[in-house]
Amino acid sequence: MYRTHTCGELKQSDINKEVTLSGWVQKIRNLGAMTFIDIRDRYGITQLFFDKETNPKLTKRTEELGREFVIRVEGKVTERSSKNTDMPTGDIEITVTEFKILSKSEIPPFTIEDNTDGGEEIRLKYRYLDLRRNTVQKGIILRHRMAQEVRKYLNEQDFLEIETPFLIKSTPEGARDFVVPSRMSEGKFYALPQSPQVFKQLLMISGYDKYFQLIKCFRDEDFRADRQPEFTQLDCEMSFVEREDILTLFEGLAKHLFSVIKGKSFTEQFPRITYDDALNIYGSDRPDIRFEIKITDLSEIVKGNGFNVFDNAEFTGGICAEGLSGYSRKQTDELIKWVQRPQIGAKGLVFAKYNEDGTFKSSVDKFYSQEALKKWADAMNAKPGDLMLLMSGNKKQILIALGELRLEMGNRLDLRNDNEFAPLWIVDFPLFEKDEETGQMHAVHHPFTSPKKDHINSLDSDPENIKAEAYDLVINGNEIGGGSIRIHETELQKKMFRILGFTDEEAKAQFGFLMDAFKYGAPPHGGIAFGFDRWVALFNGSDSIRDVIAFPKNNAGRDIMIDAPASVDDQQLKDLNLKIIKKG
Amino acid sequence: MYRTHTCGELKQSDINKEVTLSGWVQKIRNLGAMTFIDIRDRYGITQLFFDKETNPKLTKRTEELGREFVIRVEGKVTERSSKNTDMPTGDIEITVTEFKILSKSEIPPFTIEDNTDGGEEIRLKYRYLDLRRNTVQKGIILRHRMAQEVRKYLNEQDFLEIETPFLIKSTPEGARDFVVPSRMSEGKFYALPQSPQVFKQLLMISGYDKYFQLIKCFRDEDFRADRQPEFTQLDCEMSFVEREDILTLFEGLAKHLFSVIKGKSFTEQFPRITYDDALNIYGSDRPDIRFEIKITDLSEIVKGNGFNVFDNAEFTGGICAEGLSGYSRKQTDELIKWVQRPQIGAKGLVFAKYNEDGTFKSSVDKFYSQEALKKWADAMNAKPGDLMLLMSGNKKQILIALGELRLEMGNRLDLRNDNEFAPLWIVDFPLFEKDEETGQMHAVHHPFTSPKKDHINSLDSDPENIKAEAYDLVINGNEIGGGSIRIHETELQKKMFRILGFTDEEAKAQFGFLMDAFKYGAPPHGGIAFGFDRWVALFNGSDSIRDVIAFPKNNAGRDIMIDAPASVDDQQLKDLNLKIIKKG
Repeated sequence: MYRTHTCGELKQSDINKEVTLSGWVQKIRNLGAMTFIDIRDRYGITQLFFDKETNPKLTKRTEELGREFVIRVEGKVTERSSKNTDMPTGDIEITVTEFKILSKSEIPPFTIEDNTDGGEEIRLKYRYLDLRRNTVQKGIILRHRMAQEVRKYLNEQDFLEIETPFLIKSTPEGARDFVVPSRMSEGKFYALPQSPQVFKQLLMISGYDKYFQLIKCFRDEDFRADRQPEFTQLDCEMSFVEREDILTLFEGLAKHLFSVIKGKSFTEQFPRITYDDALNIYGSDRPDIRFEIKITDLSEIVKGNGFNVFDNAEFTGGICAEGLSGYSRKQTDELIKWVQRPQIGAKGLVFAKYNEDGTFKSSVDKFYSQEALKKWADAMNAKPGDLMLLMSGNKKQILIALGELRLEMGNRLDLRNDNEFAPLWIVDFPLFEKDEETGQMHAVHHPFTSPKKDHINSLDSDPENIKAEAYDLVINGNEIGGGSIRIHETELQKKMFRILGFTDEEAKAQFGFLMDAFKYGAPPHGGIAFGFDRWVALFNGSDSIRDVIAFPKNNAGRDIMIDAPASVDDQQLKDLNLKIIKKG
Repeated sequence: MYRTHTCGELKQSDINKEVTLSGWVQKIRNLGAMTFIDIRDRYGITQLFFDKETNPKLTKRTEELGREFVIRVEGKVTERSSKNTDMPTGDIEITVTEFKILSKSEIPPFTIEDNTDGGEEIRLKYRYLDLRRNTVQKGIILRHRMAQEVRKYLNEQDFLEIETPFLIKSTPEGARDFVVPSRMSEGKFYALPQSPQVFKQLLMISGYDKYFQLIKCFRDEDFRADRQPEFTQLDCEMSFVEREDILTLFEGLAKHLFSVIKGKSFTEQFPRITYDDALNIYGSDRPDIRFEIKITDLSEIVKGNGFNVFDNAEFTGGICAEGLSGYSRKQTDELIKWVQRPQIGAKGLVFAKYNEDGTFKSSVDKFYSQEALKKWADAMNAKPGDLMLLMSGNKKQILIALGELRLEMGNRLDLRNDNEFAPLWIVDFPLFEKDEETGQMHAVHHPFTSPKKDHINSLDSDPENIKAEAYDLVINGNEIGGGSIRIHETELQKKMFRILGFTDEEAKAQFGFLMDAFKYGAPPHGGIAFGFDRWVALFNGSDSIRDVIAFPKNNAGRDIMIDAPASVDDQQLKDLNLKIIKKG
């Protein structure tokens, strides 16, 4: 028997018990007359005590031990002379009577501590050691708990978790698929799913009514920061529902998680903002509304003062940064550089300080009088002490740039508190997005998204302005989930494919089975999918989803621990009827 | 709003309520003066009533409806004149005041009934319609419930469900991997996991202590009956455990499922039989012990009577089929043919009838007297009226053939009742299996399986007779799960790889990261993996795992609904640096 208790459970009431513990050596303190060893497992840390006077041989043997050795100890639970109130087992220690080394350890390549000395690359290579660190373990356990609570909530709502296949068919729509060559069907390939979208719609057509799945999805993207080629989605679909049913039910899920995981109670309905409003007010379709700063449309107010840039601009907008009128020239110059970075791509930034004494000082004083600047301030609700920041140009581009600047000012003003959560729904997304180069329409969500009912009639005449019955759940500036009411009528679906530039043959080749399925009685249905990695990361206070994935890939899509992807042997390729073409 | 209630919940106490239901038209009975329609959803069936006299227009409109139309109806819950006690809603019907067709249906290619007229191929092609059938839905819902109960049990035991990666590295060991070409790393491939074996062991080394996962695994096999290229495994691993801990905990899981899913209470410990005994007694390492028939070793008893076949055989064994002494010549001839089929491969079969009058009649009366045959009967505990069946030859082959014959006789005697369950553990499997042609040793389970402690010393001298700390859970002749205590010492693991014929380089290339991990303090650990599809199929009374998979592939590994695998376009291949080689 390896243990009677874990390393996290012994306390005052266990004193005098004979116990056996097993775990890893966390720390050794040899004080000469006494030796203390901290032994660690998933559940906690317990202090071991070796007394040289009463047990010199055993105490001597502790000199063989090193950090991360795995040991089994027997002893008696005794009261500590100096208690540690910071740890659950801090009242007691084990006076050890016998121990055994179960497994030795070389010196780890980095310290197994909350603040480790290891860089990211080495920690990924030795991920199995990184996973021992308390901070990492916390994220993995949180992930387990969130998955549990998601299932609990949805099970109680009569949802069925149904597994959909991984070996499916490649569709050129959207991001690239990972493909899987078939050995049995020469020259043919399966594809790994980017999402179970089609299958969950088929399940609705099959009458399963309420479906969910916590499921791995795959996307062969040119890797960007904090994207993983495989990621986990909480995928959900319901029949005989309208938008309201879905928002209510999944707002309930979010509230359940906020409550049980973060101890935050949301009694009010989450705010709902249309996509257009989100863009106009926050410059983003996933606004962080933990802080108040809003974009003001100043296009008209700023015109007619001889300042060409504003006079000729399609749009001029501004935000007001509270209390920053004291910004120095250096600080404002730095802000200008910040918006000019390629990620933001703005040409410049006009600022106007509303000084504490009620006067104004702007970068365009040549054109704007104090009275003119006062009008800006009034429009933006600026007060003495505030800093007004303005940009102008193409409306959408400027709104997005102001949205980024808004987040930056939120950071500088320390308005984005990790432990505060501001969820909201974004609704009424556009149905299509026009490719400016080709003029081709693309689906903003996917080709199965239903237009809003009263927009259906203008599908042909004015597709760009059609809104979709689509919605996103946004928390603290992160898109946590998104979904839509689906099209359940064959004719409407055909029309969508036509607008999206599919020929009938292409639509049939790729989605023929779904179109066929619609012919046999499809219920009205809709759903939502949540980025589970991102949600867990958010609740874990992590910047990167890698923190909450047990074995993540690096930013180049490699698993550097197991060294994958890797070469396969020639026979394997031959069996698959494949040959590698060398580039060059 | 589409519904106030589901089609499965209205009852006597709801009478006079105004309700709205949505669902599929299951059946229409137009009796002239009245029309009855059964409307179906996942939850049940409700009868709709249309009265021609009071509502002629509405009743007329029902003529537009057909089977599988999706409709929304409004009406009042009324008491049925002739109640149907077979259905939960059989006390009531809805007197319809209004209805709307939500979606029409063409005539389905087969009937959506428990006993459908559709063959398997067409049902797979239209799987979304097959999934509507009550019998299929029952299996999918059972699967959901079993998954829920598995998670509930393991969560309560402090297990963590941790996701392991799908894009890993190919290893030539065991079955073929499916591989996934990498676009970013030219000429390199990921592989899909055959099991998360290595990762769960790493999680133990990382200190996660108790891990499980319900997870898809992949095997590129030459498809055999009832194998799927992707299948679901309940994968589990624990640290600081011995065999006993694992058997106890997972026997608890099995008992929990038997109890909550099948209403069967197992109070006694499951029987445990060694692999050697299972083979000797039942001719199988996954014996069906719902029935008593056992194999008797008759090698010595049958010798010395001048019958060369038995005299020269390494082994002669027999089974006794109760009450079948009346078998005709035709029936015994048929049995002989049965054992001679290639699947069994026996040369022949000797039988001896123990007649009701106490005399014997055998196919070898020329050699054996009544007294000699009485000795057989005594050895086999045969009674008057029984039929004794004997085979001889190579011991292992004959035991296995007798094992198959035993199952056949169990079927004929109707001793294998679908609603009776006989679980047991098979323990002490051999560690190695010798390839008779090459003499090479292979791991019976996998290369990480620990030998039994007291066998470790003879690893080099007598590898063939080494037993492993490995175990299988068998229910009704199905291997439901299997696992082992793992090796946690680097030196022993290295030795295993050597015996298995890996060079140090091969072992390092394939499992280097695991071998490295062992250097930093590996706890003793072990685990088990269950074939979840098989377990659900067993509890569902299904012969095929396809019955309990929402979207299965056919026996050739094709998804004939979505038509996968399929061709991919040239650009996709080019991006992957791949070319298809035509055979021939």
